Amino acid sequence: MTEFEKTARNKVVRVAERGAYDSQTIYAILDASPICHLAFVQEGKPFLIPTIHARSGDEILLHGAKAGRLMKHIGAGNDVCIAVTHLDGLVLARSAFHHSMNYRSAVIFGTGRIIDDEAEKMRGFETITNRVLPGRWDEVRQPNAKEMNATALAAISIESASAKVRTGGPMDDEEDYDLPIWAGVVPIRSQMLEPETDPSSKKDLPVPEHVKDFISSNR
Amino acid sequence: MTEFEKTARNKVVRVAERGAYDSQTIYAILDASPICHLAFVQEGKPFLIPTIHARSGDEILLHGAKAGRLMKHIGAGNDVCIAVTHLDGLVLARSAFHHSMNYRSAVIFGTGRIIDDEAEKMRGFETITNRVLPGRWDEVRQPNAKEMNATALAAISIESASAKVRTGGPMDDEEDYDLPIWAGVVPIRSQMLEPETDPSSKKDLPVPEHVKDFISSNR
Repeated sequence: MTEFEKTARNKVVRVAERGAYDSQTIYAILDASPICHLAFVQEGKPFLIPTIHARSGDEILLHGAKAGRLMKHIGAGNDVCIAVTHLDGLVLARSAFHHSMNYRSAVIFGTGRIIDDEAEKMRGFETITNRVLPGRWDEVRQPNAKEMNATALAAISIESASAKVRTGGPMDDEEDYDLPIWAGVVPIRSQMLEPETDPSSKKDLPVPEHVKDFISSNR
Repeated sequence: MTEFEKTARNKVVRVAERGAYDSQTIYAILDASPICHLAFVQEGKPFLIPTIHARSGDEILLHGAKAGRLMKHIGAGNDVCIAVTHLDGLVLARSAFHHSMNYRSAVIFGTGRIIDDEAEKMRGFETITNRVLPGRWDEVRQPNAKEMNATALAAISIESASAKVRTGGPMDDEEDYDLPIWAGVVPIRSQMLEPETDPSSKKDLPVPEHVKDFISSNR
């Protein structure tokens, strides 16, 4: 487990006790979603892109069109900031002021490199595919030369990071507990539903076990 | 309905036919989540913060600690970029290359102002509270002078925006349809569960109708 140094870049300032700097907490939040938001700067202005990501050790793998601006931007060594946030519930307090959300949020800072080595690139695509759905890579047709050539793979080295987590019920001012106002939490869960077989299928194939297993573990 | 001008800033380049520039599509995506990711630039570097947002017409309202860096940054007239993304499903193709996600994503660009007028600020907090949970504002204790003073309200004017949406099944290469590989979609839904009454409650109050109604509409 890594403990990221607290600096001006990653320090959780507001409600500092909700902050965490250990890789175990941060990586669990990153790994729990296949998509992230990525921020970068162009001509001094902020831009945001939602994209698929896959952590591999202390790096985050991203892929994209080789000709695309994001891959070029990362390849040029520019800074990026990546965030993953899970909304876990609405926290309904007795006062408007103390309304809140339960959430798990991770923010990482780093710079990247484009992976050109063909074998490393193929392993990266395998990692991304299996992060989206464990076991998928071995079940599908793997990339051919044309596809490999059209797609760039980038690895962002995690230089700094932090997490922020809120759990539990509302925290009202003491005198407000006497008010006749209901308070509590509405939990929110991201759930996977029954798989829908592609209606364009030519063959009548059953839903494979690796798909069923993954859905079961995300219910 | 507004049609945002396509510029270098907001143009959807990759798979351009998934792009949309009308306010109806973009605002529906923004409004479907109480949290957004906000990117800003400090000393040339990108930063990301997940935060509660509420659209009001062609502006996005945000709130935060008056002493916090985000509110100061917005108040100074700096550019921000805000994104909301909903992950709707995993798209499992026959080839690794054609794996994808179904999603609805909106990205907006703008600059903000801090709202100091007390009445406008109070209306803004009402808008935010009711976006998180319709009808909540009238049920709770409204902000007192101390709370109003501790919290800043910012309005981001939406200067440019775009949406990107993918729906439907996998799109494989024609020859891959003959492979004995299952393909389809695993739908993902964000669902609200049964409300949990605050165990610290002093009064035995039922879950109110506005809470029940909202959960029913988000199942």
